[in-house]
Amino acid sequence: MSSERITSYLSEHLDRHVEQLCDWLSIPSISSVSENDDDTRRAAVFIADELRGLGLEVELVKTDGHPLVFAQSEQKPERRTLLFYGHYDVQPVDPLDLWTSPPFEPRIADGVIYARGACDDKGQLYAHVKALEAYVEEGVELPVNVKFIIEGEQECGGPAVYRYTEQNADKLACDAVVISDTSLYNAETPAVCYSLRGLTYMQIDLTGPGADLHSGSFGGVVQNPGNALAEIVAALKDTDGRIRIPGFYDNVLEVDDEERAAFASLNYTDDVLRKETGAPGPFGEAGYTTLERMWARPTCDVNGLWCGYSGEGAKTIVPAAAAAKVSMRLVPDQKPDEIAELFEKYVLEIAPPGVEVKVTYLHGAEAVMVPRDSELMQAGLRAMERGFGKAPVFIREGGSIPIVGTFKACLKSPVLLLGYGLPDDNIHSPNEKFHVDNFARGILTTAAMLEEAAH
Amino acid sequence: MSSERITSYLSEHLDRHVEQLCDWLSIPSISSVSENDDDTRRAAVFIADELRGLGLEVELVKTDGHPLVFAQSEQKPERRTLLFYGHYDVQPVDPLDLWTSPPFEPRIADGVIYARGACDDKGQLYAHVKALEAYVEEGVELPVNVKFIIEGEQECGGPAVYRYTEQNADKLACDAVVISDTSLYNAETPAVCYSLRGLTYMQIDLTGPGADLHSGSFGGVVQNPGNALAEIVAALKDTDGRIRIPGFYDNVLEVDDEERAAFASLNYTDDVLRKETGAPGPFGEAGYTTLERMWARPTCDVNGLWCGYSGEGAKTIVPAAAAAKVSMRLVPDQKPDEIAELFEKYVLEIAPPGVEVKVTYLHGAEAVMVPRDSELMQAGLRAMERGFGKAPVFIREGGSIPIVGTFKACLKSPVLLLGYGLPDDNIHSPNEKFHVDNFARGILTTAAMLEEAAH
Repeated sequence: MSSERITSYLSEHLDRHVEQLCDWLSIPSISSVSENDDDTRRAAVFIADELRGLGLEVELVKTDGHPLVFAQSEQKPERRTLLFYGHYDVQPVDPLDLWTSPPFEPRIADGVIYARGACDDKGQLYAHVKALEAYVEEGVELPVNVKFIIEGEQECGGPAVYRYTEQNADKLACDAVVISDTSLYNAETPAVCYSLRGLTYMQIDLTGPGADLHSGSFGGVVQNPGNALAEIVAALKDTDGRIRIPGFYDNVLEVDDEERAAFASLNYTDDVLRKETGAPGPFGEAGYTTLERMWARPTCDVNGLWCGYSGEGAKTIVPAAAAAKVSMRLVPDQKPDEIAELFEKYVLEIAPPGVEVKVTYLHGAEAVMVPRDSELMQAGLRAMERGFGKAPVFIREGGSIPIVGTFKACLKSPVLLLGYGLPDDNIHSPNEKFHVDNFARGILTTAAMLEEAAH
Repeated sequence: MSSERITSYLSEHLDRHVEQLCDWLSIPSISSVSENDDDTRRAAVFIADELRGLGLEVELVKTDGHPLVFAQSEQKPERRTLLFYGHYDVQPVDPLDLWTSPPFEPRIADGVIYARGACDDKGQLYAHVKALEAYVEEGVELPVNVKFIIEGEQECGGPAVYRYTEQNADKLACDAVVISDTSLYNAETPAVCYSLRGLTYMQIDLTGPGADLHSGSFGGVVQNPGNALAEIVAALKDTDGRIRIPGFYDNVLEVDDEERAAFASLNYTDDVLRKETGAPGPFGEAGYTTLERMWARPTCDVNGLWCGYSGEGAKTIVPAAAAAKVSMRLVPDQKPDEIAELFEKYVLEIAPPGVEVKVTYLHGAEAVMVPRDSELMQAGLRAMERGFGKAPVFIREGGSIPIVGTFKACLKSPVLLLGYGLPDDNIHSPNEKFHVDNFARGILTTAAMLEEAAH
């Protein structure tokens, strides 16, 4: 039977697949750092070459930023079509000193691959590619038409893939989009995700004195941008963890009773949270459980603060400037642009006197929710069960995959979020990892999905 | 008359005095940079040799760090005694590229000496030495006994002079300490300073998650150290600029009516403040003028904040940690150690849940106030008037000179702060300068002080 041939091929070639993934992971494709631009491009060429080697028609699409990779198998009109989306760019690596091995020198220890991008998203995306390879190399005809759209600006919020999708909806037309950029519920529980939070990412810049001032000479007589910034950031939330920006909650879709019950049955304990985060305990909006806060409630988080002197010992200055990066995770039906406006308005309103305030909207992403009862969603559930050997649960996801909203809007297709990583795979953190077992199961899942989608 | 001989001697020899000062300034005695240790010692030997040449008994005192120079004239019991304090070490020179000429190649242009240390403190200290030279070379008997204690760790916060003063109070015994390490009120207005603010310098370290977390995965379910830090720092002051630490104001000596009137007569305008700071305007504790805030009110200033990501673009994390450097300028009779305790207690009390908080007391300095009506203070006023040709005003100073508190405590003598530099002489900044006119007037002031103190 062909699916057995596929399975046995994948088992035989797993070691090589891991090695090839490591080659890809060794390219430091940090899209937000311009000095890495050549590397970022190299990562695109790597995956484009690989897809071309599998017989796909491949385009390296020039953009104003990092290139897109579009690829497609032969498109037979009688077959269904799956569009696989992923990204070849990765997050920055600082703080570098917390990595136990260099982020771009992939290391395998105890069945775990450590490298920036191992899970997010090179590793998961590569699972789709390797599933395809099995069909091609085993000479098994593809049960569905396959397309890939792979971008290099996911981690820097670049616009290329959005523009391309809007302008090439026909080319990307499909029966479902498959994305592996979420995660399993936990090591024992595969999951299919039906909702993503959105994002509004802002920067606040305050300027006060013309230069750092001696805090003896001028302390107490001019506004200190550091103190002023703290006031602004502190005023974003009340002590119950509720966001104080007027209008912020207006369009929030409340968690329904069915979801509340489903979340509760997943039994996410405080101990699990402590283990996954290293935090001393749960903290969040009053009146909601941890999973509700994580998946279905909006947030307002400081991502960075900087101001004045941070070296050893004491430097007595009134700093000239201070800044914060603040991002809000959104839920259906909040709109990122509207939230950005509300945020800016509120910050300007509450800003104390004596500083100049600049608020910048860095980028946004739409929150998404897809129906749980569609035919291809059911195919996804079956594929996960075949790949991971256990029926998956439904989950939501606290993170954002901005392109999902655009796919939904432009392609009018369901988006299937089949995540192969673990929640503690340290994506966006030092020591990002991906378990070889999950890589292997992910490849099997994709291989099964190609078949299940054809039914 | 002897004072005329002194004056005319000083006028005749000014050019040589400037040249000799430049020789001293060419020694890069940066006390905080260990590779300059030999130079720092050379600067000590230079001034020790000069004082020995004037007939003083001189000791180069070995310490754990840079040596002290102690010197004294013949001590006649019937005469009053003045102790001159100064420091031969200088601040680091970075950013070097902002200097218009090398910091240790003194340059004279338009009557201004440019060099690191020109004003702080070699130039001002040298004025005392050259006043003494005039008496010695003219054969005029000294009207008072003279002592010098000169340190080499003022700019690196070394302990040597504190220990020496505590252990040698008898040796340093005097009727007044004279220090030229403050400044004139402005170019037209000589000043005598009678009060310095103190300092309590703290660091707050917050830790939350074990590592930076993905703000999608975990945003909203754990405390964010950046948000928590903002809450804490914001709670340090109310919107009127008043510090909210319980007990903070308990020992604050209020500005009296006489001082209020005197400060007001100095006519420090908002325009001057804007020019000196580049800030958009004044800001501070409600109910006080700028000079009152600057000189006579305590502060609570952020010197630094750091947390999470501060690079280009967006990084979506819940940071693992956040920290702030916060310093408080103190006024009489606040005690630095007590304020540090109150600060720590308050921060621990108000800290939101979900983070671990560490508060560190980095260092402190006592605020100082000396009586304005003492006999030797009056002598100082007369000396400034003779040296600068204009009656000085009384000022206070917002900065701290930590040794002053130690002198006051150990020697029980008034400390006279006769500053000869300008507020914009760029001490601690590139292009430090000292006007030759002010050097000359400073020498005349010290020469007059020796006489006035004897009355």
